[in-house]
Amino acid sequence: MEQKQPAQVGIIMGSKSDLNIMQDAADVLKEFGIAFEITVVSAHRTPERMFDYAKAAAGRGIRVIIAGAGGAAHLPGMVASITTLPVIGVPVKSSNSIDGWDSILSILQMPNGIPVATVALNAAKNAGLLAAQILATSSEELTGKMQQYKDDLKKKIEESAAEVEAKS
Amino acid sequence: MEQKQPAQVGIIMGSKSDLNIMQDAADVLKEFGIAFEITVVSAHRTPERMFDYAKAAAGRGIRVIIAGAGGAAHLPGMVASITTLPVIGVPVKSSNSIDGWDSILSILQMPNGIPVATVALNAAKNAGLLAAQILATSSEELTGKMQQYKDDLKKKIEESAAEVEAKS
Amino acid sequence: MEQKQPAQVGIIMGSKSDLNIMQDAADVLKEFGIAFEITVVSAHRTPERMFDYAKAAAGRGIRVIIAGAGGAAHLPGMVASITTLPVIGVPVKSSNSIDGWDSILSILQMPNGIPVATVALNAAKNAGLLAAQILATSSEELTGKMQQYKDDLKKKIEESAAEVEAKS
Amino acid sequence: MEQKQPAQVGIIMGSKSDLNIMQDAADVLKEFGIAFEITVVSAHRTPERMFDYAKAAAGRGIRVIIAGAGGAAHLPGMVASITTLPVIGVPVKSSNSIDGWDSILSILQMPNGIPVATVALNAAKNAGLLAAQILATSSEELTGKMQQYKDDLKKKIEESAAEVEAKS
Amino acid sequence: MEQKQPAQVGIIMGSKSDLNIMQDAADVLKEFGIAFEITVVSAHRTPERMFDYAKAAAGRGIRVIIAGAGGAAHLPGMVASITTLPVIGVPVKSSNSIDGWDSILSILQMPNGIPVATVALNAAKNAGLLAAQILATSSEELTGKMQQYKDDLKKKIEESAAEVEAKS
Amino acid sequence: MEQKQPAQVGIIMGSKSDLNIMQDAADVLKEFGIAFEITVVSAHRTPERMFDYAKAAAGRGIRVIIAGAGGAAHLPGMVASITTLPVIGVPVKSSNSIDGWDSILSILQMPNGIPVATVALNAAKNAGLLAAQILATSSEELTGKMQQYKDDLKKKIEESAAEVEAKS
Amino acid sequence: MEQKQPAQVGIIMGSKSDLNIMQDAADVLKEFGIAFEITVVSAHRTPERMFDYAKAAAGRGIRVIIAGAGGAAHLPGMVASITTLPVIGVPVKSSNSIDGWDSILSILQMPNGIPVATVALNAAKNAGLLAAQILATSSEELTGKMQQYKDDLKKKIEESAAEVEAKS
Amino acid sequence: MEQKQPAQVGIIMGSKSDLNIMQDAADVLKEFGIAFEITVVSAHRTPERMFDYAKAAAGRGIRVIIAGAGGAAHLPGMVASITTLPVIGVPVKSSNSIDGWDSILSILQMPNGIPVATVALNAAKNAGLLAAQILATSSEELTGKMQQYKDDLKKKIEESAAEVEAKS
Repeated sequence: MEQKQPAQVGIIMGSKSDLNIMQDAADVLKEFGIAFEITVVSAHRTPERMFDYAKAAAGRGIRVIIAGAGGAAHLPGMVASITTLPVIGVPVKSSNSIDGWDSILSILQMPNGIPVATVALNAAKNAGLLAAQILATSSEELTGKMQQYKDDLKKKIEESAAEVEAKS
Repeated sequence: MEQKQPAQVGIIMGSKSDLNIMQDAADVLKEFGIAFEITVVSAHRTPERMFDYAKAAAGRGIRVIIAGAGGAAHLPGMVASITTLPVIGVPVKSSNSIDGWDSILSILQMPNGIPVATVALNAAKNAGLLAAQILATSSEELTGKMQQYKDDLKKKIEESAAEVEAKS
Repeated sequence: MEQKQPAQVGIIMGSKSDLNIMQDAADVLKEFGIAFEITVVSAHRTPERMFDYAKAAAGRGIRVIIAGAGGAAHLPGMVASITTLPVIGVPVKSSNSIDGWDSILSILQMPNGIPVATVALNAAKNAGLLAAQILATSSEELTGKMQQYKDDLKKKIEESAAEVEAKS
Repeated sequence: MEQKQPAQVGIIMGSKSDLNIMQDAADVLKEFGIAFEITVVSAHRTPERMFDYAKAAAGRGIRVIIAGAGGAAHLPGMVASITTLPVIGVPVKSSNSIDGWDSILSILQMPNGIPVATVALNAAKNAGLLAAQILATSSEELTGKMQQYKDDLKKKIEESAAEVEAKS
Repeated sequence: MEQKQPAQVGIIMGSKSDLNIMQDAADVLKEFGIAFEITVVSAHRTPERMFDYAKAAAGRGIRVIIAGAGGAAHLPGMVASITTLPVIGVPVKSSNSIDGWDSILSILQMPNGIPVATVALNAAKNAGLLAAQILATSSEELTGKMQQYKDDLKKKIEESAAEVEAKS
Repeated sequence: MEQKQPAQVGIIMGSKSDLNIMQDAADVLKEFGIAFEITVVSAHRTPERMFDYAKAAAGRGIRVIIAGAGGAAHLPGMVASITTLPVIGVPVKSSNSIDGWDSILSILQMPNGIPVATVALNAAKNAGLLAAQILATSSEELTGKMQQYKDDLKKKIEESAAEVEAKS
Repeated sequence: MEQKQPAQVGIIMGSKSDLNIMQDAADVLKEFGIAFEITVVSAHRTPERMFDYAKAAAGRGIRVIIAGAGGAAHLPGMVASITTLPVIGVPVKSSNSIDGWDSILSILQMPNGIPVATVALNAAKNAGLLAAQILATSSEELTGKMQQYKDDLKKKIEESAAEVEAKS
Repeated sequence: MEQKQPAQVGIIMGSKSDLNIMQDAADVLKEFGIAFEITVVSAHRTPERMFDYAKAAAGRGIRVIIAGAGGAAHLPGMVASITTLPVIGVPVKSSNSIDGWDSILSILQMPNGIPVATVALNAAKNAGLLAAQILATSSEELTGKMQQYKDDLKKKIEESAAEVEAKS
């Protein structure tokens, strides 16, 4: 990581093969200038590592955790059970997933007491944005960047509109 | 509202009939001593009110919005499209919903650029907890309360365990 | 647009990438000689543009709106919440959609008071035909063309039948 | 029927047991002062009656057909195949339906060439409103009533909002 | 058709594009030496042709009808509503179908009074076999062929078993 | 059984608790004057009984088998694998079934070579009618009764129509 | 527990409210004379307790673990990730579950390397039987009891059959 | 088979085309040094062979059966109905399956009395591991190997983590 500041967001995923999806979260955080760390933590293959990661994250300065997983996706919910930090869950449509339904339901349907902030299937970009929004609740600078981001989205749509209108 | 401090969390719902679900979010926030406001804002029947609410929320001091809706549930996503605040979506299994699937999918599956932090079906309590976790990212006091909340959950399970073991 | 007459049908879509689907609506309207306009309006990335479009459409002479979107597809329902015009919704199986289920449910399952006339997944052609049928309720010319269209469908099936019978 | 004017909207349903749902369409049309007729036409038990009804409707002055059915719900699509009038389909969650999925899919997923304007499950009220919107495309009076209807919806939500705010 | 005898089975399909699936039914009937006819009959694009076909089939000597269709697949059910002959429905996973669910539900979920003998998705071969079994209820010759067919299936599995055992 | 003639249709079910559904098949057969037998045969709890039943049915004069089961419903398919008779499967929404989806899919989705004529969820009445239609392929008397049955259905709908029209 | 022998099977559940379902597993084990223990272990509310339970189970003499949970049901999979013992998962249709789909998918769809032996929704009885079958792989006595159990099932069906045959 | 010892695990599948999935079970068993046999047994095309296989397995020394099948997948459940051995079911996403849902539900949803230990869709590797875990309940050597297997999984994740961390 090029960031010198301590990571504020921890991005974790259940398998290296989720990286092509989860990279979007990292890219958004870079765009917002938010320091992050990224690694692989499997709830099922490294339960102790998962436990240690979730237990230590807040103490290391992490303020938000983004966790992506597919199939019977227990990583986001288990991390949320251990830490008090907000956990954002990214359901990944991995190769062993049934069209993503298992990933979504096993991340979203957490019992009362242990929320996971779930985003759309494969939507790691939105997970990064949500982490930025959460940090922006105590940062005017980030709030300003978020407004700028929304303005840019708007401009892109207006350009698309002009293109489509011109063609028709 | 009995709170004297300005509201930090805005709880909105698409219909008064969602109140029996959404009250759980209010109750959790009270438990954490977080000032909130609660009202009805329908994306479909009062689009301008929804627009105004979302536009003005941050300026009034709101830091997190919790929005509950059922069926073709557009309220959380539309509010998220207008504000830069984090928006937590509660899919409500309302009477016109198809077992909750429409509520979940129309809140969860937001396009890239506009996240909604979705919780489980009817899980307004988790929405309140997630709002508290978000505010706790810049409040040691709330972090402490959150840890206490988790410890209480644990105690209740341990008591349940003792009961079940005794009976068997 | 080559049409000189003021547009009677407004075709909008949430993203330029929906154009390959939504073009079918435009093609049908051309075939029926109905003036239309076509552009991109995103409920989530340009909420004010969406609001302005829906608010102004009837005043500009638009009589029917066709709106296509995918995933958590709020465009048709939100436009319907603002205008009194009939709104036809086209659920698009976009790349971020879960096999189209999210697109269908978030367009179809509108609450009482705000209908969206939903057509089949990706069926922009049927949206165009439905718009023509709606305009035909006050146009004998269009009614005649619609009858002709149905007769042509019938002829194509009869030709198919002859081919299949000949082969067997 | 108390209406003296010739019916402009035909409401049909596959079974008498659908009447408790389909009555909502009739009630809305009455509210808008639109003359309608209502009867039972089963695609499966009276195919010839269905055929005759659809064939004759336009000639009798009917301008929009509302058809409700449940399970393998063929009535709306079959009527649409025979008439050139716009057909609004109401998927009914009848006792033999699988949570409404069969009703929805067999009405919504019409092939290219034969649209059915589908509304939400059991949403006969929205079917009535959509019929009114279609007729309003050539009636300033109906357009005015539709605007009034929307204003009333808005007022009810504002009242709900006041109630919920007062309670909290 | 090479058969000289009058057709005993009528194979119909909603679109020429279903032929690549429905051909399997024809091939099985040939294998059993059962005379059949095959053509295209669209419930939605040629409702009168459908009506006439179903009405006349028994009189022409047809004893079983096999009908394949996809999406909102009304052909099997509508034919069954008109004829007293047994109708076998083949849900086709056509290009406009949602993974076949619409095809299955709109063929299978017929109301009481009007059965359609539904086979698996795309299983036109099984439709042909079922037609043969139905005719075999009054033909010892066909019963014998059916037993032979089952014996052949068994032999193929035993050969597969031997191959797999040899490889391992 | 009161029937003196040898049974032509065998009705079997996986559990006595399916009888309240399967009785409908028996009632229809009585109405058509078709001799039948009815019993409990569980594929999973009495596999040998199931095997023996299926093996012996044709020899005892049975010409069609109706098999109802719920959950992982293997009875219809397994019986079809053993006999050459046509087997009609009734998916039962039993207490352990997931809204009937398991019952439907495990009966309907038979592999090539072994068809089961599947009817709608809980539609034992239609199973009985289908059995009558199958026997009618070689009986003019039954064909006549089937036509009468259809005429009666039609009359009931016409009466319903008159009632609904009178009320409105 | 009345058993004097050390427990061979550990039955755990995510919440005391699952006991009415999970008791069936205990009852079957009692019937087979297999010593067991039963308690509440929540993956989400007591992650450390869950960890400790899974880690220690084999050392205490437990040979099979039965774990029941509902919603985003992580207990069976997480326990399986920590122990080398076979883990049987019981998807519970708890009050917060979406018709059981979330419970099933989050237990069944485990990644390669970490199996959970999943039984049907709410089928704690089958979980108990499976545990008995597993222990019977090294116990002739249990194998004999299992054969007896199957013989009893058969007898009950034969009695049901006699009843149904007598009534008809 | 190279193994000289009598097979302890029987791997069967409904069709030779399932071998590319089911081979994973064989490979895992080889890795653990567990003797196995592998063959094709179709419940539907060779019911007697299936019956004989299940009846004889325990007597030949088989202690666990792994059965894979797709679509209306009756093989695992039917084998479980005949033998007292534990049966592991592998739902195969075969070409005729509806995204695997039919395979899963017709294997998983067994009635009380006849469990099938179901693993994830296509997860034959996990079926092999589960068989090893079952045999390990009476073998310290296998328990040791299972612990080693888990340690290896952990190492692979730790290596992945290092790679992902290095890249970021």
